Amino acid sequence: MSQKKILLREDEMPTQWQNIVPDIPGGMQPPLDPETKQPAGPEKLSQVFPMGLLEQEMSGERWIDIPEEILEIYKIWRPTPLVRADNLEKALGTKAKIYFKYEGASPVGSHKPNSAVAQAYYNKREGIKRLATETGAGQWGSSLAFATHKFGIECKVYMVRVSFDQKPYRKAMMHTYGAQVVPSPSPDTAFGRSVLEKMPDTPGSLGISISEALEDAATRDDTKYALGSVLNHVIHHQTIVGLEAKKQMEKAGDYPDVVIGCCGGGSNFAGIAVPFIIDKLEGKNVRFVGVEPASCPTMTKGKITYDFGDVAQMTPLLPMYTLGHDFIPPGIHAGGLRYHGMSPIISALIRDKIIEPISVRQLECFEAGVLFSQTEGIIPAPESCHAVRAAIIEATRDLNEPKTILFNLSGHGLLDLASYESYFNGELENYDYPAEAVEESMKHLPQI
Amino acid sequence: MSQKKILLREDEMPTQWQNIVPDIPGGMQPPLDPETKQPAGPEKLSQVFPMGLLEQEMSGERWIDIPEEILEIYKIWRPTPLVRADNLEKALGTKAKIYFKYEGASPVGSHKPNSAVAQAYYNKREGIKRLATETGAGQWGSSLAFATHKFGIECKVYMVRVSFDQKPYRKAMMHTYGAQVVPSPSPDTAFGRSVLEKMPDTPGSLGISISEALEDAATRDDTKYALGSVLNHVIHHQTIVGLEAKKQMEKAGDYPDVVIGCCGGGSNFAGIAVPFIIDKLEGKNVRFVGVEPASCPTMTKGKITYDFGDVAQMTPLLPMYTLGHDFIPPGIHAGGLRYHGMSPIISALIRDKIIEPISVRQLECFEAGVLFSQTEGIIPAPESCHAVRAAIIEATRDLNEPKTILFNLSGHGLLDLASYESYFNGELENYDYPAEAVEESMKHLPQI
Repeated sequence: MSQKKILLREDEMPTQWQNIVPDIPGGMQPPLDPETKQPAGPEKLSQVFPMGLLEQEMSGERWIDIPEEILEIYKIWRPTPLVRADNLEKALGTKAKIYFKYEGASPVGSHKPNSAVAQAYYNKREGIKRLATETGAGQWGSSLAFATHKFGIECKVYMVRVSFDQKPYRKAMMHTYGAQVVPSPSPDTAFGRSVLEKMPDTPGSLGISISEALEDAATRDDTKYALGSVLNHVIHHQTIVGLEAKKQMEKAGDYPDVVIGCCGGGSNFAGIAVPFIIDKLEGKNVRFVGVEPASCPTMTKGKITYDFGDVAQMTPLLPMYTLGHDFIPPGIHAGGLRYHGMSPIISALIRDKIIEPISVRQLECFEAGVLFSQTEGIIPAPESCHAVRAAIIEATRDLNEPKTILFNLSGHGLLDLASYESYFNGELENYDYPAEAVEESMKHLPQI
Repeated sequence: MSQKKILLREDEMPTQWQNIVPDIPGGMQPPLDPETKQPAGPEKLSQVFPMGLLEQEMSGERWIDIPEEILEIYKIWRPTPLVRADNLEKALGTKAKIYFKYEGASPVGSHKPNSAVAQAYYNKREGIKRLATETGAGQWGSSLAFATHKFGIECKVYMVRVSFDQKPYRKAMMHTYGAQVVPSPSPDTAFGRSVLEKMPDTPGSLGISISEALEDAATRDDTKYALGSVLNHVIHHQTIVGLEAKKQMEKAGDYPDVVIGCCGGGSNFAGIAVPFIIDKLEGKNVRFVGVEPASCPTMTKGKITYDFGDVAQMTPLLPMYTLGHDFIPPGIHAGGLRYHGMSPIISALIRDKIIEPISVRQLECFEAGVLFSQTEGIIPAPESCHAVRAAIIEATRDLNEPKTILFNLSGHGLLDLASYESYFNGELENYDYPAEAVEESMKHLPQI
């Protein structure tokens, strides 16, 4: 029998996160203060983030030690398996070898706790009693709920109202981990109240929820804010995925020709890709494919420039691929891939032609997810279906090419089965966000 | 850092299932034909089961080889981790060591595919094109849907109507694996139609669904029937859980003082217990605790006798603990623990004083499940919460006793989060099934 799962022992788990920032060929531009248009220093950001995380955000060190307390919690589910998708290979009739790193093995079902546990730890270390955050689909909110409870920190989650109503299971998960969850916009913040006054029936949006969580953190001494993707420190935390995968590929006696991940804010893809990108910069022949939905084509139709991270323009200006901060995403089912911007690290690596962005359509992604479920058993999250789809594209372009494909299965879809049912019922359709609409939303970019 | 998860390599996975039947001290009585009251031979049962499984059902061999094709599919998620619940131990302040075997690691989230894959294989081997089964909460139905698809067998699931309506995620999971699912009672069988005529608005029951699936299998040449618990061959398949756990305890340099599992039909508990029971029969000092809900007290308030396995009296008479085949379970949330009978193997082991049955109440089980979620991360299925509760009882009886506890975490609760939410909202209550009601339902036992 051939080996299907390549496992690491707990004592083989990486003890450092990797920071690619000092090695990005074209360098990275700093975030800017929107008022002065000058680089934003830590003093301003320290109102909402603890210094431990801000140091990582600005760090030029290639390696960051993972504190023992975080490793202890990681051990609940890490190291995660690297799995050879041999059943999928057979179904495709390809000579390509397909491996996936399975981040759905965490208790909440995705890669998100890799950063949530770290963020809770650094906040706890600085005496923070309470964290505020937003969540859309609910993966980040439940991860932070889990992580904060482990450190005895209170957690308040502003959950986009339409998700709050449609995803009762995610809400119940956050309750189980002891977090407070409110539908956003909520009467609990001035911004939420102002929105409710104007639009009492609004389904909410991630932009509104971010603004509420930021206001909550900015107006309470005991509270900081936590973000689940985009920022450098989040990317660093997620590199444990790729560092493990690299060790596991070595154990398998293999090395990827292409590394694939889906991109919302970019953290799961960067997490698996960064350690291999370092190899490429040292001469290895390996490609990197970041996959986004055609309905939210940040990397493939947006442009790289300075933009706000949120709709209410409360964040610093970030140098990133963006569709414009007031881009309204259509109601696709991969809720985690509907962000208007892209992590500055990934944006710089696209600019430097190291990462190839592609966009795929929703129906093909669900088709790929169903094939994956039926062959490999695991039902992928709608977000992760984008990576599955891209892996299938790579594996079937030339069925006789014996290449090695590695992708990140960032989460399972057990809490997203309603969207599979919608797919089976023919209720979903493809939607390519039109170039003219991108043009329109780009008009509101800040002037630098 | 101490080791939290004890893993096995794939090449350490057991290659045989264990059969405890020849070693049960008081022996086992045969199933009886309800008409003749004589032992039921394979010829009658072969109408609905393939010979490969009937041979296992009647087998006196201590070991049954696991076919290579089944091992290949097991590798998708097996061997499953044995986990040291050190965070739970700390929260309890106990000197006991608590280990759990995590069967929620399978793609469908429970131990059920261990038997579903085997049953699909033996049916396929005998040329069966289609399987019919029933499902209540949906764990068995989704496991058989997954397993049949792997062998290219069609699958039809009769799902208790109230679950069909209330558990859309389970239904979607079965669809994803390509199964046909209908709410039961359905117009697709004569029995279903007769029920619908009399009670068009009935929520259905497992008894009705079993009868529909049996009728489906009995009236179609291409179709057999599959059952997810109770029967001997199902118990044998589940022993892979305990065989792995035994190897893993050895790796940890430990041995359980007590082995715990929740009991519906009995397969997950027997699965983890059997290999250790063999040790006990050879002189080892180890206890076995089977846990059932106080609302469905088959083992603790029922009696051991011959009874039907279903409400419609279509099965042979089985020698088992029972509450009477027309027992109506109350609407508790551990849907997998609402069966009126108990596996004949477990029943015989209770009779022989090898297994200690206990009953626990619903609210304490959810309380235990929440504590487990917050400490160990994994949210247990409501059924598995019963095992968690019993492990906590064992660990806290004397906090200073350094005993070793092993329990089977038979599944995660990600598709049962609605019941956690009901618990948080105070909508659940305890219910002890009254002794007089047991007396009443016992009146309809068949006369032998």
